[in-house]
Amino acid sequence: MSKGKVCLAYSGGLDTSVILAWLIEQGYEVVAFMANIGQEEDFEAAKIKALAIGATKFVCVDIQEEYVKKVLFPAIQVNAIYENVYLLGTALARPVIAKAQIAVAEQEGCFAVTHGCTGKGNDQVRFELSFYALQPDIKVITPWREPSFFKRFAGRQDLLDYATEKGIPVHQTKSKPWSTDENMAHISFEAGILEDPNHTPPKDMWKLTVDPLDAPDEPEDFTIQYKQGIPVKLTLADGTEVSDPVKLFLTANAIARRNGVGRIDIVENRFIGIKSRGCYETPGLTILRSCHVDLEGLTLDREVRAIRDSYVTPTYSRLLYNGKYFTPECEYVRTMIAPSQKTVNGVVRARCYKGSLSILGRYSSTEHLYDATESSMDELTGFEPVDASGFIAIQSIRIKKYGQSARKDGGSLNL
Amino acid sequence: MSKGKVCLAYSGGLDTSVILAWLIEQGYEVVAFMANIGQEEDFEAAKIKALAIGATKFVCVDIQEEYVKKVLFPAIQVNAIYENVYLLGTALARPVIAKAQIAVAEQEGCFAVTHGCTGKGNDQVRFELSFYALQPDIKVITPWREPSFFKRFAGRQDLLDYATEKGIPVHQTKSKPWSTDENMAHISFEAGILEDPNHTPPKDMWKLTVDPLDAPDEPEDFTIQYKQGIPVKLTLADGTEVSDPVKLFLTANAIARRNGVGRIDIVENRFIGIKSRGCYETPGLTILRSCHVDLEGLTLDREVRAIRDSYVTPTYSRLLYNGKYFTPECEYVRTMIAPSQKTVNGVVRARCYKGSLSILGRYSSTEHLYDATESSMDELTGFEPVDASGFIAIQSIRIKKYGQSARKDGGSLNL
Amino acid sequence: MSKGKVCLAYSGGLDTSVILAWLIEQGYEVVAFMANIGQEEDFEAAKIKALAIGATKFVCVDIQEEYVKKVLFPAIQVNAIYENVYLLGTALARPVIAKAQIAVAEQEGCFAVTHGCTGKGNDQVRFELSFYALQPDIKVITPWREPSFFKRFAGRQDLLDYATEKGIPVHQTKSKPWSTDENMAHISFEAGILEDPNHTPPKDMWKLTVDPLDAPDEPEDFTIQYKQGIPVKLTLADGTEVSDPVKLFLTANAIARRNGVGRIDIVENRFIGIKSRGCYETPGLTILRSCHVDLEGLTLDREVRAIRDSYVTPTYSRLLYNGKYFTPECEYVRTMIAPSQKTVNGVVRARCYKGSLSILGRYSSTEHLYDATESSMDELTGFEPVDASGFIAIQSIRIKKYGQSARKDGGSLNL
Amino acid sequence: MSKGKVCLAYSGGLDTSVILAWLIEQGYEVVAFMANIGQEEDFEAAKIKALAIGATKFVCVDIQEEYVKKVLFPAIQVNAIYENVYLLGTALARPVIAKAQIAVAEQEGCFAVTHGCTGKGNDQVRFELSFYALQPDIKVITPWREPSFFKRFAGRQDLLDYATEKGIPVHQTKSKPWSTDENMAHISFEAGILEDPNHTPPKDMWKLTVDPLDAPDEPEDFTIQYKQGIPVKLTLADGTEVSDPVKLFLTANAIARRNGVGRIDIVENRFIGIKSRGCYETPGLTILRSCHVDLEGLTLDREVRAIRDSYVTPTYSRLLYNGKYFTPECEYVRTMIAPSQKTVNGVVRARCYKGSLSILGRYSSTEHLYDATESSMDELTGFEPVDASGFIAIQSIRIKKYGQSARKDGGSLNL
Repeated sequence: MSKGKVCLAYSGGLDTSVILAWLIEQGYEVVAFMANIGQEEDFEAAKIKALAIGATKFVCVDIQEEYVKKVLFPAIQVNAIYENVYLLGTALARPVIAKAQIAVAEQEGCFAVTHGCTGKGNDQVRFELSFYALQPDIKVITPWREPSFFKRFAGRQDLLDYATEKGIPVHQTKSKPWSTDENMAHISFEAGILEDPNHTPPKDMWKLTVDPLDAPDEPEDFTIQYKQGIPVKLTLADGTEVSDPVKLFLTANAIARRNGVGRIDIVENRFIGIKSRGCYETPGLTILRSCHVDLEGLTLDREVRAIRDSYVTPTYSRLLYNGKYFTPECEYVRTMIAPSQKTVNGVVRARCYKGSLSILGRYSSTEHLYDATESSMDELTGFEPVDASGFIAIQSIRIKKYGQSARKDGGSLNL
Repeated sequence: MSKGKVCLAYSGGLDTSVILAWLIEQGYEVVAFMANIGQEEDFEAAKIKALAIGATKFVCVDIQEEYVKKVLFPAIQVNAIYENVYLLGTALARPVIAKAQIAVAEQEGCFAVTHGCTGKGNDQVRFELSFYALQPDIKVITPWREPSFFKRFAGRQDLLDYATEKGIPVHQTKSKPWSTDENMAHISFEAGILEDPNHTPPKDMWKLTVDPLDAPDEPEDFTIQYKQGIPVKLTLADGTEVSDPVKLFLTANAIARRNGVGRIDIVENRFIGIKSRGCYETPGLTILRSCHVDLEGLTLDREVRAIRDSYVTPTYSRLLYNGKYFTPECEYVRTMIAPSQKTVNGVVRARCYKGSLSILGRYSSTEHLYDATESSMDELTGFEPVDASGFIAIQSIRIKKYGQSARKDGGSLNL
Repeated sequence: MSKGKVCLAYSGGLDTSVILAWLIEQGYEVVAFMANIGQEEDFEAAKIKALAIGATKFVCVDIQEEYVKKVLFPAIQVNAIYENVYLLGTALARPVIAKAQIAVAEQEGCFAVTHGCTGKGNDQVRFELSFYALQPDIKVITPWREPSFFKRFAGRQDLLDYATEKGIPVHQTKSKPWSTDENMAHISFEAGILEDPNHTPPKDMWKLTVDPLDAPDEPEDFTIQYKQGIPVKLTLADGTEVSDPVKLFLTANAIARRNGVGRIDIVENRFIGIKSRGCYETPGLTILRSCHVDLEGLTLDREVRAIRDSYVTPTYSRLLYNGKYFTPECEYVRTMIAPSQKTVNGVVRARCYKGSLSILGRYSSTEHLYDATESSMDELTGFEPVDASGFIAIQSIRIKKYGQSARKDGGSLNL
Repeated sequence: MSKGKVCLAYSGGLDTSVILAWLIEQGYEVVAFMANIGQEEDFEAAKIKALAIGATKFVCVDIQEEYVKKVLFPAIQVNAIYENVYLLGTALARPVIAKAQIAVAEQEGCFAVTHGCTGKGNDQVRFELSFYALQPDIKVITPWREPSFFKRFAGRQDLLDYATEKGIPVHQTKSKPWSTDENMAHISFEAGILEDPNHTPPKDMWKLTVDPLDAPDEPEDFTIQYKQGIPVKLTLADGTEVSDPVKLFLTANAIARRNGVGRIDIVENRFIGIKSRGCYETPGLTILRSCHVDLEGLTLDREVRAIRDSYVTPTYSRLLYNGKYFTPECEYVRTMIAPSQKTVNGVVRARCYKGSLSILGRYSSTEHLYDATESSMDELTGFEPVDASGFIAIQSIRIKKYGQSARKDGGSLNL
């Protein structure tokens, strides 16, 4: 007698394979769900494995294009960044995966969804808040927060023993001493030996990008064209042009990967209030975001930029990090992205070299906020120097008062 | 019959030499003022030149230590940055110079101060608002905004002709096709050929840092220790330790300079509303700021950081950029820096290599916000997984309502 | 030989009548422009007077409906307020008037526009920045900032003498000892005896509203219905319903006026850096805004509201106050208003009584963010109390660390 | 055999009396704790009742002065307000009570603290986060979130039956159809019949303030003097002066209470994500805060105020509402209050009349940011009108570009 059908976010790895077997053991029918979001994965092998363990069905959904167009490109438009450094590579993928999983769950008649996220991480929050927004009546089964599960599988050996018992093939002879999560935008490394924040990651941990020390001795130049803040054409040094969103993103990845661009190593603050050390490779997104920032210098009004930078970018980034994509406030903040980008049209010329990215120049054939004549220190066309005197004088009204007040009773202003 | 004594910010260059001569011609007595703020400059030659032209007196004040301790270190504590990229190298120097100039003006009995800034730039604002705050009764003479001056000296040749006439020695046979401004923290390049924002700066323009392509093939590792967010010890790969603030800053400069770290090329928004292209080298400050950001990941509370990042950093940076150091609001915002840094104590290990800076690790022997056990995905000590369920459930109350509302009438939430 | 045609913002009063005569004396042809924006004014008399003085043409444009729909209603949606108290009654009118004046100027072939604003106020900025945005090539003639004008008319007697000389009829035997500006949303009083901020305004100064002490002894109840934050129906105690935007606004005015609601007396900070004392009557807008705030409590998501309150409301209000309606940043911020108001649908029941406004109740038949069952302290339907424990426990992770740190070395946390 | 000693926040009412008896039944020794924070309460009767039920000890702590000086006065300085309307009357009291309770718990050797808050409210969060910060090792027993308790006492009758069984005297023959919470600053009413947000509260619900309709027909004038934003003297119409902090606060209460000032009725957003209707009387704090806001107009620099208003006030208010007083971020934000108030020195004259509060005037003998001469439209002393032209011209550089861009291709800017 089945307890009903559940949809499991399946990765093909040890944890979710054990969860799959355990759910079946608990009396559930399980639909194994995978999302192809650009990670390197043997989807066919995963399918075979899931079905072998006993999944009722295996459903893999390709969400790469949706990911690039609906989430990554807006993240570039808004220059999304968390705690000054992290480009949100994992967080960005979650809403797209959650949406696909809920769609599969609905389509397959599942009353519940389930995942292999642990109880201390951000991903449980990101997935579950998305699930509840997308399908408020859904049940969520969380093995790593169920005492009957996590007490039974207290260590890796318990998982391996159970796998053996259930005939689950275990490919890795030895687990890597860290966890990873990968999608088209990035790969993350955390846990294991990385939990000591002073332990420099071993050279062979990094996967997507070449070590800057091993990168080519010649710099690689390229140009990116943006329309309303969205990258629309990437031109390589040899003249090759790429315009298709997914291909463009993958090409940006390729440039950055071969030149060692996009690695970071940080201690960040998880949503649940725990600090966590993470190492990330975010190759293409690093390039596409940085060149976008540069183009905004040329084409975006100062005050629009200041408002966007002060309010929209940090709020959007924090909401994404905290798993709040499908919330009223995030929907609201998303409406603030496109209107800021109307004038962000133009081309940036850039260079990758041994781990660094630099800007070589930029131009726009349609936007004219930058005006070399006006900017020129040598030109007075259309500019009355005396106006600057008035500009300063009016501002000094308030400031002189401040100075006078400070000098009362013999005081003075200090640095 | 003298019109009175004025204090001129003298650089030794063509412009301020002509201004010096012109002021004397107008009937002023002129005290030539220079600030040693770490720029490469032949102060002795400038003194001889100023006195030769006719300055009543030449006063050079060494403000390097004040600059490092009172302005650069707080800028590191607050991670000051303007428009995502610019570390404010020029803006930071201005209040210190202005304060020194006002002090000299008062001491020498000058009724006015004067400078060689043009009418389109930021520096006129930065200097003059500082002057008015520090000494509200001061007069400011601004030749480049005086029609009698700027119409007479409409081009460089007019300046050269006047210099010849007045016997002012002109060293440069040919002017460099850009302007520069230098202090201990950075050098700026703008104007001239750089006014085309798509013109890549020539290799020989850059002055402080080696071209990344010419940097050493071996990476250079080092460590920086911070106390309350202030760098207190820099240790080189060979074990050399530097603690004196000025020496520490200069050592950070040296590391970055020889490894090509700290170059940027941007189009920025000047305070007066004009866009401007600037190239900057900010070697040591780039390192000291980035390592500080990293250490905050380990040692600073998430919410304190978020508040500081949202409010204090952008406000302080914008005020500095706009020349508002000596204002009530900047004084207020400065009080917000130190209280945010109480726990920012620890050591960062980092690497420079061919233009890039990377973090190798970090630790703190006094702060314990990071807790590897707590962070560990494998450990449940002191953590009840079920709490995460409650945490998510409470947050989903509001979010489920949002989802229900979206599903009313057959709708759905979209990416 | 005419110097060309200019469009003067004409009020019919002494100042602009003198300016009109003076402009003609200077050799300009003058088109006298008036906007009917709901102020009490004898437009016909003004026309006769302008033409008598010598205006080439008199053009009066009715912009009341545009004002209500395009500016006042969005101000209600966003709860616009400056410095905690001022509802921006004057500032809101300026962009609408400026737009009408530029349209008349263009239509009448004027190369310039001109106004009677003084050099210390906000209105000069509000008008001129709007003029330049709407018609960047327009010239602006500003008599009160022209030495040839303001030195000639240094005092009120000079204006009166000139009026006599030019045959300009002067109606007031004695000027009121303050200035006023009026539009449909409010009237302002400033200058004159009000310049002493401790001088209580005389009872007979107030014009739109009855003195609360003289207001009816019976309270007046009414209801307002909003759709997407815009008032769409006002129902009086006797059942009368008003839906037309202008009539609805005027009815709100009427209720507030007869009950003495909407007076304020403040010292505010003008854009040019001077503090200024202003007394304002803003009857209907006070009611419509306060009831809107109340309805948001019932119908607006907490986080959407928090973002709107933190970012949009103060930014929009400050931009309006500073005359920056027609700027890229204000256009950008305006796009943020409507998306925040999707759920602000419902009815508020309120009461005016002797100067105060109170809320009696509110409901919404379409929005269900408020749920009495869920809210009820006595009901547990759909709510697991243990979830609150998890919610608190997760948040206490970070906070316990803070407490431990404070107790290190025998310290403690203090109030 | 005792399970140990716990400290119960005892109110003397039915709920906490039942909890007291139940805790004893569960095997705990119970110290009954009460805080005198200005609520109207028969502390002696509560003591007798607690001891009669079986409390080991009854401890009442007078925290009125601490409340006024450490929490209410800073709230006035920062103009604390939540969601535009609510003055945080309940939230402000919580940290002071929590601190007193932890002190009693430590002194009496209790291993746990406990309270009668329900699982849906804000107060559980406010108390518990404070407990954990102040004493990270404390245990918190939460009967209303314990299934063994809340299932047993599912309705009011269960509580009454248990009270009868345990011999607990029940004074109320009939419970009022709402809940209240009172302290020196305010009283709250919620739940019961108020859960319908369109149900106007009955006239006899309001307790602290007279109905505006029944208030005196004569207005009552008074003056308040502030030093650094803190009220230091309140002078009544008859000349009586009050300076002691607690007495001053109580006198402000008395004025507001007899004139019907300080009532609000709102739907607010609780921290746990539920909307809730609350009616509040906050008499004295309403006066003290509003007059403080007014004085800031006269004495506080525009930009300091803007920064404080944008950042500090909403952040501090939200943190307080959400129970985060004892957190690193709140400690940080508290450091931002006093530095904003250095110049807020002066006197405000105000009036209460039938529910409304109005400002009659204000002055400062020490602060001179307001300058009637400078402010005067008729005076040009120290002000060059042409400066305003420059001020506007420089700002129009950017704005003209915007206008030109809008007019490209025949477009135009719209309202």
